[in-house]
Amino acid sequence: MRMYDLIRKKKCGGELSSEEIRYMINGFTDGSIPDYQMSAMTMAICFQGMNPRETVDLTLAMRDSGDVLDLSKIQGVKVDKHSTGGVGDKTSLALAPIVAALGVPVAKMSGRGLGHTGGTIDKLECFPGFTAELSEETFVHNVNTIGIAIAGQTANLAPADKKLYALRDVTATVDQMSLIASSIMSKKLAGGSNAIVLDVKTGNGAFMKELKDSVALAKEMVAIGTMAGKRMAAVITDMDQPLGSVVGNSLEVIEAIETLRGEGPSDFKEVVFALGAQMLVFAGKAAETAEAKSLMESAIADGSALSKFAEFVRAQGGDAAAVYDTSLLPVASQTLVVESPRDGYVHRILAEDVGIACMTLGGGRETKESKIDLSVGIRLRKKNADAVKRGEPLAVIYGNDAAKMEAARAKIAGAYEISDKPREKEAVIRQYIFPE
Amino acid sequence: MRMYDLIRKKKCGGELSSEEIRYMINGFTDGSIPDYQMSAMTMAICFQGMNPRETVDLTLAMRDSGDVLDLSKIQGVKVDKHSTGGVGDKTSLALAPIVAALGVPVAKMSGRGLGHTGGTIDKLECFPGFTAELSEETFVHNVNTIGIAIAGQTANLAPADKKLYALRDVTATVDQMSLIASSIMSKKLAGGSNAIVLDVKTGNGAFMKELKDSVALAKEMVAIGTMAGKRMAAVITDMDQPLGSVVGNSLEVIEAIETLRGEGPSDFKEVVFALGAQMLVFAGKAAETAEAKSLMESAIADGSALSKFAEFVRAQGGDAAAVYDTSLLPVASQTLVVESPRDGYVHRILAEDVGIACMTLGGGRETKESKIDLSVGIRLRKKNADAVKRGEPLAVIYGNDAAKMEAARAKIAGAYEISDKPREKEAVIRQYIFPE
Repeated sequence: MRMYDLIRKKKCGGELSSEEIRYMINGFTDGSIPDYQMSAMTMAICFQGMNPRETVDLTLAMRDSGDVLDLSKIQGVKVDKHSTGGVGDKTSLALAPIVAALGVPVAKMSGRGLGHTGGTIDKLECFPGFTAELSEETFVHNVNTIGIAIAGQTANLAPADKKLYALRDVTATVDQMSLIASSIMSKKLAGGSNAIVLDVKTGNGAFMKELKDSVALAKEMVAIGTMAGKRMAAVITDMDQPLGSVVGNSLEVIEAIETLRGEGPSDFKEVVFALGAQMLVFAGKAAETAEAKSLMESAIADGSALSKFAEFVRAQGGDAAAVYDTSLLPVASQTLVVESPRDGYVHRILAEDVGIACMTLGGGRETKESKIDLSVGIRLRKKNADAVKRGEPLAVIYGNDAAKMEAARAKIAGAYEISDKPREKEAVIRQYIFPE
Repeated sequence: MRMYDLIRKKKCGGELSSEEIRYMINGFTDGSIPDYQMSAMTMAICFQGMNPRETVDLTLAMRDSGDVLDLSKIQGVKVDKHSTGGVGDKTSLALAPIVAALGVPVAKMSGRGLGHTGGTIDKLECFPGFTAELSEETFVHNVNTIGIAIAGQTANLAPADKKLYALRDVTATVDQMSLIASSIMSKKLAGGSNAIVLDVKTGNGAFMKELKDSVALAKEMVAIGTMAGKRMAAVITDMDQPLGSVVGNSLEVIEAIETLRGEGPSDFKEVVFALGAQMLVFAGKAAETAEAKSLMESAIADGSALSKFAEFVRAQGGDAAAVYDTSLLPVASQTLVVESPRDGYVHRILAEDVGIACMTLGGGRETKESKIDLSVGIRLRKKNADAVKRGEPLAVIYGNDAAKMEAARAKIAGAYEISDKPREKEAVIRQYIFPE
């Protein structure tokens, strides 16, 4: 078998066999197939596409390029959750303790933030002493005893995907649906869970700006997971503005805690409930989602979700006092108000620009090596469809450096589109996707 | 400027500006743009194409990536000739002395053979002592005194093309018309001549199998050369069978000498005359091609073409005795006849397979390092449209190794397609292409 022939076949619109895809991914991973052949192949795929069978084969070949976790030591049905990434997305922080409190084991690998999106582990480091560096033994032990553990990705999951993504990123071949779907799913399948719930964002701040593209991506991922033997569901959620009211590490932790107390913003709660209900159904804790949502309400009402969160923070070495007193969390003391330039209605909020403003304040990483300031962030006082008066606050910036705050103010002012006409408030939950 | 953005632009069907193309080729040549980005770009070009302006810009950028020869020390109008490559193509050997005898300066860079096609310099080395390693001084001196010099390519002509071709060759992106045209023309334009006559082959043994593709390639190359200020013409010639009667280094030299004596095969003579007539017109030696052809006939009839060939061989260190006594040339003494398996008519002769048979005998290079046996080859006794009887010789193999000769016999037997129905003999000259 020669990579040349495979490139030629795909270029001419042919279908790659399972053996050919495995040969290609194995050779690319071990370096025997050079980058310049692989980039020609991915460009050919951008034009000729891949059918569902090829996409599944690509996903499985990438999954098998590294470790595939064995979660059999963890009792119960393991349900993983994945978000395609958005601004203000602190979903895992609230979702994990709620479902764990209801008996669903949460054994999660998480990452750090890069660019304009934040990472769960950075946020958790607001609790002094908290660590995501867990041995496999501690990880399993914590899940089996308190029901929840969140670790940084230490295993060598889908290295072929890591290498391929880096190549696609510099050759303008990132935006092909089958390549995106197989990239996400190869890592998720290597994660070893029994079921996966996907949060696929849609809108200006999402990777997929158009609803139809988000739906197509969700369908493709659900199909791949189903063919690989996993129970699958996807929820398409709004990213035409940041999720919730705040963006920034400590502010987002506070918002998650408020949500665990039943006081969080409604759009954020809706997303948490939509995803959590699916997880509870997959785990066999509820027969259908209405029942699951009422269980989630009670876990909030009786304080069990909040205390599960505190238990989790403590189990990973953190000082959990702030779970009960959020004033202990590090929030920057300087504030700057972004005022509305005129009367009107918020038409949309460019989520990516809000994320970039937070990064500008020091709250995000420009490169993997950047140190981040957990205390900075943005509170959105107006969201989509809200009426505003000239001079009224649109947002409040929390920072530690006047020049950076001024730059962030300009960015956020530009992110708000104010129109004369009122607009309908759009639902945060757009669509559910299940296996066909 | 970033290569990423250029790949993305071409992928989306955009047009690359002159500056962008030059940035790309310069960066690729100096190594600042990596192979994996360039191969993604060439694959995108295979799908989106390049318009005539982009193709000219690519050609000029590649021309300028290395030396551009200054032939101003050579008197007269310099006319270059280029063939897209075929089997049995010994055209330069006869063409160069004929036009030189008529006063057209021939200052030619030639190559060695690789794969199933031969090279002019290998063939000339049949004359003991002949060398193509000439200093620039000797090269110019020879052209100005005897009117002809053929040197191996020593100058660094179009290194960007060399690097790009090597990359296209391993990423299945060789067959894109604009990339082929710019590759050939970048080297020709760097060669410094005033006019260029192209021999574009068509048929089973040619790079372009279909006449329409050969015509399109010829038109594209003629347009590029014209825009770059050269006088241009192209002749589309048949490669649905090998050219002339023989394939193999010494055999081809003998056939060229026979042609210079007026005794060569008619198809070969037609190609030599078609190309030579254009060269004479461009050089101002004839007003039109009919007049040019009668000049060529007289250069053969009066022996001046043959003695020019001998003069040329001597000037480059060779023993020219064999020019007048071809029995001195090294022809293998063992022969093996390939017989027709049945009665019928020669439908076609797979030229590439005949070339491969010659390589099998030792007459061609499998890699750049291979040593070749100048004495081996094949004489075609039957050509397209000829009637044959069962057992009648189709071809005769000349070799030095019985096992290799048997392998060559099988290859040549397979190369001959014999059909029941007679077929029309096709013209060797298919079409002329001039600037539009």
